[in-house]
Amino acid sequence: MKQKVLFILLNNYADWEGAYLASCLQNGIMEDSPTPYEVKTVAPTLEVVTSLGGFRTVPDYSFDTMPSDYAALVLIGGLQWNTREAQRVAPILRRAIAQHKIIGAICNGASFMARKGFLNTVKHTGNGLEHLRSWGGKAYTNASAFVRRQAVTDQRIVTANGTGALEFARELLLLLQADAQNRIFLYYNFNKNGLFEE
Amino acid sequence: MKQKVLFILLNNYADWEGAYLASCLQNGIMEDSPTPYEVKTVAPTLEVVTSLGGFRTVPDYSFDTMPSDYAALVLIGGLQWNTREAQRVAPILRRAIAQHKIIGAICNGASFMARKGFLNTVKHTGNGLEHLRSWGGKAYTNASAFVRRQAVTDQRIVTANGTGALEFARELLLLLQADAQNRIFLYYNFNKNGLFEE
Repeated sequence: MKQKVLFILLNNYADWEGAYLASCLQNGIMEDSPTPYEVKTVAPTLEVVTSLGGFRTVPDYSFDTMPSDYAALVLIGGLQWNTREAQRVAPILRRAIAQHKIIGAICNGASFMARKGFLNTVKHTGNGLEHLRSWGGKAYTNASAFVRRQAVTDQRIVTANGTGALEFARELLLLLQADAQNRIFLYYNFNKNGLFEE
Repeated sequence: MKQKVLFILLNNYADWEGAYLASCLQNGIMEDSPTPYEVKTVAPTLEVVTSLGGFRTVPDYSFDTMPSDYAALVLIGGLQWNTREAQRVAPILRRAIAQHKIIGAICNGASFMARKGFLNTVKHTGNGLEHLRSWGGKAYTNASAFVRRQAVTDQRIVTANGTGALEFARELLLLLQADAQNRIFLYYNFNKNGLFEE
């Protein structure tokens, strides 16, 4: 029985930010190397959500029907993390953290974490320190723990900026122990460097 | 009135391969820089197709309902380009080439092009020369025009390997003149290098 990794998608979610991670978890990092995980998508309702690229995604669950038994929660960035609808993710996150779930947040998913005070006890990154300060306001009190890296893991929280989709995948795959470490690094290097030089 | 760019999706399509391109075309390469294009997805039927990452996508069109008025056809790689269903893309491609449409093909999308003889008059790349030879068999007669680059544009055809999603996007955006060249290169470099060093 595979453990679920839940991807939280709002409308105008960023197509590329969860793409490497989802395909690795669901289909294996390399051929014939299944992981113990399966990917499920979660959106505010069961209605279709549309990505920035115009892909129309049917969610597996809504915020009301999502299961409580899962391994990790992943917040995919996009343009609607400052909406009223996004507010509904705050209690979901609070519960997940209380239950020691693994959390991933990339781009404005990380900005939302800052705004809700969830980055105040971990080293983290995001779309730049000024960006997190701007989103977080007084709720963000942990600027000294901002790290200038593409993706940062601390305790059970992984954050990344919007250009760090591959590093975000690498860090979450490692934290989830989705496959052997050397295979995760091989995958990352192959995709980061490319089959051919540019 | 925006021109359509049609993304051909089969089941088990690769989430990351069209993700940068689609979001740039549909949402603009940078903030407040709309392109003259819109992204539409096309699948064998109007049934949901599921990506390698488990994302369930509702296609905008089926092979039977797709419009004939469009700017470009983009074949996204994945694990079903060697199926009977994929055969139905051959006449669509033949018509598109006859009508001088712009064609993009990444990963096994490019392998399929080789198999159907569509790479025999252009410089091209793909998932390696041996891979194209294996897929193409006798129908692939243009090995001398294989180029060891992440993505290659020749005439109106762009090909790429599965690790070249960003280069694939760059080449198609340039060919489509989706935005000013310097903005396309800025976007590419920012995403290729990342906000922070690794």
